[in-house]
Amino acid sequence: MESPTRIEAALEQTVSRATAAPCPARLAEAIRYAVFPSGGRVRPGLCLSVARACGDPDPAIADAAAVALELLHCASLVQDDLPCFDDAAVRRGRPSLHKRFGEEIAILVGDALIVAAFRAVTSLIPANPAKCTAILSVLTAAAGAPSGIAAGQAWESEPSVDVAAYHHAKTAALFEAAAMAGALAGGAEPAAWRQAGGLLGEAYQVADDLADALGEAPRLGKPIHKDGDKRRPSVVAKLGIESARHRLDELLDQAMRSVPDCAGRADVEAFLAQTAERLCPPALRVAR
Amino acid sequence: MESPTRIEAALEQTVSRATAAPCPARLAEAIRYAVFPSGGRVRPGLCLSVARACGDPDPAIADAAAVALELLHCASLVQDDLPCFDDAAVRRGRPSLHKRFGEEIAILVGDALIVAAFRAVTSLIPANPAKCTAILSVLTAAAGAPSGIAAGQAWESEPSVDVAAYHHAKTAALFEAAAMAGALAGGAEPAAWRQAGGLLGEAYQVADDLADALGEAPRLGKPIHKDGDKRRPSVVAKLGIESARHRLDELLDQAMRSVPDCAGRADVEAFLAQTAERLCPPALRVAR
Repeated sequence: MESPTRIEAALEQTVSRATAAPCPARLAEAIRYAVFPSGGRVRPGLCLSVARACGDPDPAIADAAAVALELLHCASLVQDDLPCFDDAAVRRGRPSLHKRFGEEIAILVGDALIVAAFRAVTSLIPANPAKCTAILSVLTAAAGAPSGIAAGQAWESEPSVDVAAYHHAKTAALFEAAAMAGALAGGAEPAAWRQAGGLLGEAYQVADDLADALGEAPRLGKPIHKDGDKRRPSVVAKLGIESARHRLDELLDQAMRSVPDCAGRADVEAFLAQTAERLCPPALRVAR
Repeated sequence: MESPTRIEAALEQTVSRATAAPCPARLAEAIRYAVFPSGGRVRPGLCLSVARACGDPDPAIADAAAVALELLHCASLVQDDLPCFDDAAVRRGRPSLHKRFGEEIAILVGDALIVAAFRAVTSLIPANPAKCTAILSVLTAAAGAPSGIAAGQAWESEPSVDVAAYHHAKTAALFEAAAMAGALAGGAEPAAWRQAGGLLGEAYQVADDLADALGEAPRLGKPIHKDGDKRRPSVVAKLGIESARHRLDELLDQAMRSVPDCAGRADVEAFLAQTAERLCPPALRVAR
């Protein structure tokens, strides 16, 4: 089965379980709204491409890790849009979740997705305790405090920001986790894959900052110029647009070069190239 | 070591890990504010009293489960107080967390506590995969959707409420989980303990509704008459004050009688009696 099909099937299974009876109807509808239809699925795609490159010996565990990564990401998007954060009315071209279902439900969807993310992996512990423990360790580190997504978001409330820690926690941590979880599911050494994930995550952050600064709203499907409005630390604000474009190119090159030697190296490279293409449309690229 | 000391020590260890460098300073301070100083610690107390009654063969696992239960509870309190839920300015006699640190930080503290709760248990999987898996299954069911705390809270956004599902998910589920997790850590059959936990949870809900209706604000350390204001399904609204008092007495009696036979049965009974005493001050009791 192709990775995108696997990801959607695994997400459907987990979401079905979380929204089964006796789930309140609005919460169930909102959980589904947060996860479907498909976003880029970049993090689960990275996880599965690494697992497959390593021979994919435990596809159920790789799928569970991919699901967990995507649900943690979806939870962070729902929260990002809330009035007290970005106050975004639109996401992926539709009303943001709290606009559609209210703030209470949006906050509870965040909780439910985080719990479902861990449940997807913990339910497979009996199949392979060592792999699941290692994957859960990577996922909890990438999601919580002191250095996961929650911490990354919290840097925006600090009077003085450690920009490297902020960007790492807010974006790169979950990309690193995706590459490492894929390697762990694949039975490979996760440390070797961490860098490739982190570099792709950094590239993603720069592309997002560029898109925000250049007003690529249609591509993002969300409001633009939020970084400047919120005086949020941004790579573009720090480097300027041209240098940020160079940095993006450089990061994508480095990500590609950092893929460890393995049987399926070409597949991971193809995934990275395809992601770079989507991440970095002509408007954001350096003229060569 | 006495249970309360064990609980505070285990919470301190988990909170220290979540707030270590490079955690943003305000988030770290707010996580600590959400967990300390001690609240009633009823759920971890129940968990440890059951584990001890069963011989406490794996105290580290019992402690981790107790920590997870308390952190999930603290996260739910922080969220309950938010403007879009109870809009409570005061909790345990101090400013509520969002009043002190802002809504953004309050929402992120919720996330960080939920992640830390699971991390406390997942980090012990290597010590005993079977016990940890079973405890994680109980905890994820009690926290998320379709029937944990997130679902319980979400019933308040439904046009028509399944009152039994609402009360079970919002309060009883985490008490059941506490009793079951204690039994699992103790190597006992969790099903036998579920009822005792659920009945105590129901009693807790009735006592809370009564306290809200009767204006026992000093005891709760939070604003009163919120249930009526929010037109929330309440046992008092359904049964009236006198019948609710009778129901509370009955539930505490039933909880006591439902404690399974085991070596340390007397200890669990003592814990339940002590909790009933705190839960049910003279003003709430039926005159005999």
